Amino acid sequence: MIDGTTDLFTALRTTGSIRRFRPDAIPGDVLHRILEAATHAPSAWNAQPWCFVAVRAPAQRRAIATAYRQAWEAAQAFTARTDADALWRARPGHARLVARVDELAQQLDSAPVLVLACLDTAQLGPMADGHGNILAPQSAYASIFPAVQNLMLAARGCGVGSTLTTVYALHEAEIRRALDVPAHMHIAALIPLGYPLRPFRVTQRKPLESVVYLDRWGEPLKD
Amino acid sequence: MIDGTTDLFTALRTTGSIRRFRPDAIPGDVLHRILEAATHAPSAWNAQPWCFVAVRAPAQRRAIATAYRQAWEAAQAFTARTDADALWRARPGHARLVARVDELAQQLDSAPVLVLACLDTAQLGPMADGHGNILAPQSAYASIFPAVQNLMLAARGCGVGSTLTTVYALHEAEIRRALDVPAHMHIAALIPLGYPLRPFRVTQRKPLESVVYLDRWGEPLKD
Repeated sequence: MIDGTTDLFTALRTTGSIRRFRPDAIPGDVLHRILEAATHAPSAWNAQPWCFVAVRAPAQRRAIATAYRQAWEAAQAFTARTDADALWRARPGHARLVARVDELAQQLDSAPVLVLACLDTAQLGPMADGHGNILAPQSAYASIFPAVQNLMLAARGCGVGSTLTTVYALHEAEIRRALDVPAHMHIAALIPLGYPLRPFRVTQRKPLESVVYLDRWGEPLKD
Repeated sequence: MIDGTTDLFTALRTTGSIRRFRPDAIPGDVLHRILEAATHAPSAWNAQPWCFVAVRAPAQRRAIATAYRQAWEAAQAFTARTDADALWRARPGHARLVARVDELAQQLDSAPVLVLACLDTAQLGPMADGHGNILAPQSAYASIFPAVQNLMLAARGCGVGSTLTTVYALHEAEIRRALDVPAHMHIAALIPLGYPLRPFRVTQRKPLESVVYLDRWGEPLKD
């Protein structure tokens, strides 16, 4: 186990986006442990309407990486055309973040495992139409992103880095074809997994008092 | 700390929905620790577009509880009218689950703290319109539900139980009014917090092999 932790609060505070990976394979038992933790997340009516595809095979990883790079290029073109990053562009660290995302997008298959987290629209009842379309996004996504976060925390606990991405969505069709993902499955997230090149660090966040209120909007949290 | 754990994997496996609470207050430092853990979650472009309102005051909790009960009754009427629970109704344990949800809905303010997890649509760039409407639900909800899961895991680590609910949405307007939540904030989830009446248990889930594939759809995960 490389730089693993089993302390809950350490894991919560040090699970940040990892985008540079060592080539080392993730052992099967570690991958099993990470995926098992994902499935302990909550879901609407405990439907557990998820499916995870863990992709290790080089050919499939290459196919995903190619689609991902094209999606990223399309996203960048959209951003430039519509000024979509206006809110973030000037923020300290943003240029470096874009460079890192770009670097990953150029070689997504440098991650030894790519996990697709999928929602089965046929198991979502009135939240979806059963043919791949989400009708009630709030409760549907509430039934998959907690599992994705569990997965990333469990990975951290095994010394494995990850990052949550949705960029692939613009070229999802190619990924579906490469992995035979049926139409009723909605791909909610793509999570690369691998042992990180750098140590895990405490993630830096806005001051807590700027994002938390007590009892009503605008009231500061005090003890 | 009542029945707390700081072991990551124990927390992941034993964070289930808690809907019956002891009346004991949650100390300020514990609430602070839980909310702080929430903010270490990932978000699109690290925008941290969230805000958490922790409601302890009895009057506001009562107002939320009243709206919540009305929303639950509306949801039940919808379910009966549209057969919305057809997928789950016959499942073992479903009737008991509904009874528990109903019990909580009749007295939501039995939880000493109610947390609203909100998305600031003005901080979501092209993912929202800045006036409270989500335009890209997948990436927007990917920027709040991981934080909600962190919150519930950290609560577990402090011996505090929780459950993720979105039922309130049908009577959200009353909750907004009671707490002065501005229109540009989208309420993504309501999470009651309190010390549980019963011990935490390992959550029971579908067999892992039924929800995980390796390399392509339908291929079993093996080591």
